[in-house]
Amino acid sequence: MTDFAIGVDLGGTNLRIAAVDVEGRLIEKVTLGTRIALGSARVLDDMCDAIRRLSEKYQDGSNLLGIGIGVPGIIDMDTAMIRESPNLPGWSDTPVRKEIERRLHTRVILENDANSAAFGEKWLGAARHVDDMAIITLGTGVGGGIVLNGHIWHGMNGMAGEFGHTTIEPDGVLCGCGNRGCVEQYASASAVMRMAKAAIASGHAPALARAASSDPEFSAKAVYNLAVQGDADARRIFQQVGRALGILVANLVNSLNLPMYVVGGGVSSAWDAFSPNIFQELRQRCMVYAATAPPSHTGDQGASAQVDAKVSRNTIITRALLGSDAGLYGAARLPMIENQ
Amino acid sequence: MTDFAIGVDLGGTNLRIAAVDVEGRLIEKVTLGTRIALGSARVLDDMCDAIRRLSEKYQDGSNLLGIGIGVPGIIDMDTAMIRESPNLPGWSDTPVRKEIERRLHTRVILENDANSAAFGEKWLGAARHVDDMAIITLGTGVGGGIVLNGHIWHGMNGMAGEFGHTTIEPDGVLCGCGNRGCVEQYASASAVMRMAKAAIASGHAPALARAASSDPEFSAKAVYNLAVQGDADARRIFQQVGRALGILVANLVNSLNLPMYVVGGGVSSAWDAFSPNIFQELRQRCMVYAATAPPSHTGDQGASAQVDAKVSRNTIITRALLGSDAGLYGAARLPMIENQ
Repeated sequence: MTDFAIGVDLGGTNLRIAAVDVEGRLIEKVTLGTRIALGSARVLDDMCDAIRRLSEKYQDGSNLLGIGIGVPGIIDMDTAMIRESPNLPGWSDTPVRKEIERRLHTRVILENDANSAAFGEKWLGAARHVDDMAIITLGTGVGGGIVLNGHIWHGMNGMAGEFGHTTIEPDGVLCGCGNRGCVEQYASASAVMRMAKAAIASGHAPALARAASSDPEFSAKAVYNLAVQGDADARRIFQQVGRALGILVANLVNSLNLPMYVVGGGVSSAWDAFSPNIFQELRQRCMVYAATAPPSHTGDQGASAQVDAKVSRNTIITRALLGSDAGLYGAARLPMIENQ
Repeated sequence: MTDFAIGVDLGGTNLRIAAVDVEGRLIEKVTLGTRIALGSARVLDDMCDAIRRLSEKYQDGSNLLGIGIGVPGIIDMDTAMIRESPNLPGWSDTPVRKEIERRLHTRVILENDANSAAFGEKWLGAARHVDDMAIITLGTGVGGGIVLNGHIWHGMNGMAGEFGHTTIEPDGVLCGCGNRGCVEQYASASAVMRMAKAAIASGHAPALARAASSDPEFSAKAVYNLAVQGDADARRIFQQVGRALGILVANLVNSLNLPMYVVGGGVSSAWDAFSPNIFQELRQRCMVYAATAPPSHTGDQGASAQVDAKVSRNTIITRALLGSDAGLYGAARLPMIENQ
């Protein structure tokens, strides 16, 4: 058997652990609930138990290259501590890497979850043919990651890629970070819900109002379903998402001139509802995109567009291919690269 | 004598050529008017005559390492042609590098002027102690450049660093590039003049109105002088400049987490009038800045702050040190690095 690594995606809801071999093949994946309420020590125990089980099971005849862990929030790369994480309340004083290393006696690489997702898409997903790329992850919040020359761009303290808190409306909606008009306030699942509630409150969005009152689990996904069915109010909400992402991507294209920008995370499954507005904003706002757009640049171009990017150096904006596994694969990849 | 290179700053108004040695010492600088009206062939003749004179004069006993040329506008790095340059009208079909190489029989490196300025400040200026930095150049327009790991970050086609055309007001002032709300519309010398004219037209800016009618060369500099004298209307204009730059820098800090952002170009001489608003926006808008700001972050910190950046990994925003020579030194540096 070929060598393998263990990747962990530590989310606020789910804790996922996977053994992945150096060819990118999934060996085994374990999904647990993250028992946040029991405190960080118990969550780390759960994680380490699962890692131990997987590594013992597969270490016969092949080497465990290491453990990579994707964590939501801002990580201080020097201390490997979580600096700020809305999804892991109370973890900001936990020396996460040290605690895991103490339990497992193995070297551990800690990484921001969006950086892990970027690395996963670069290794096995939409960006596998390019060395430079950025990812925007749309979930409860909006995260991001940058890969340059095949490596995660951490910046000075490991805080690079916080695209969700860049400003697109200077006097816009107040964000939890203290800023106004953050991308996250217009392009996350929470933003979709905020806009849906505002539309319902206006009294002019009957289908949304009906869905909200009849569905006890009314969510961004339900708003998307209405948009797919053609409801104008739901469609407008995803047009707002696309506009916000379009301004963000236009700014990234003008600033970084990368060959590829990937949109991932749960909300990216609504790609067909918001992506036309991304391209509309890009065409209007972005001189570098105007100079580098592929011949057809009105939607998701899939694999053929990626080939174009290799040949003709166009700017490609596309959706992620690995879905919610991108961060898991990317986390597993971290110790492989470190060991090469 | 030590080896040297020749740097050229080809501007729409001035054509400057300098011999600079590998230690960064200026040997000789020549300033000519750019005879734009006579066409690109004549301008290139003027440039090459001056380069030839300088190289013959100093080549006795030391090596000419090469020629670097900073050019305004977007350069296609593959073809070394100017793709778009408002300051060099009619040059977009000129194979600039090939034409110069044909005249001089020497290898020439063509570079965007803001990238050259970034490289100059990295080599000898404000960013000489860091390996990663970005520059924002405030002139007639707003340009930018990024240095990562000590090298200019070109992006895929050499178009990276177009910060002047990133959006800070999505429904804002229309820009020549086709976008609305570009940084350039709020933070360039042209933007200062636009805002001054709007203030005068409102009928409520008496000092600006007097200056404009009495001074035949009324300019951004004159607006700055009124701001320094305490005129509230002129001060408000530079507060707008600072706000726009603050939003831009906040977005760059959140996206790239670099140790240093340098503000250069002619308008940066008004640093004291606009920089307080940069820091105000950063404090309000930028979570990565909040986590990495130096202990005192309310203004220009000069050399001591640069030492801090080495030690404690703070985010430093500061003005350029080399003034209008940054691009000239940076251009001269290009062939030195290529020869190392």
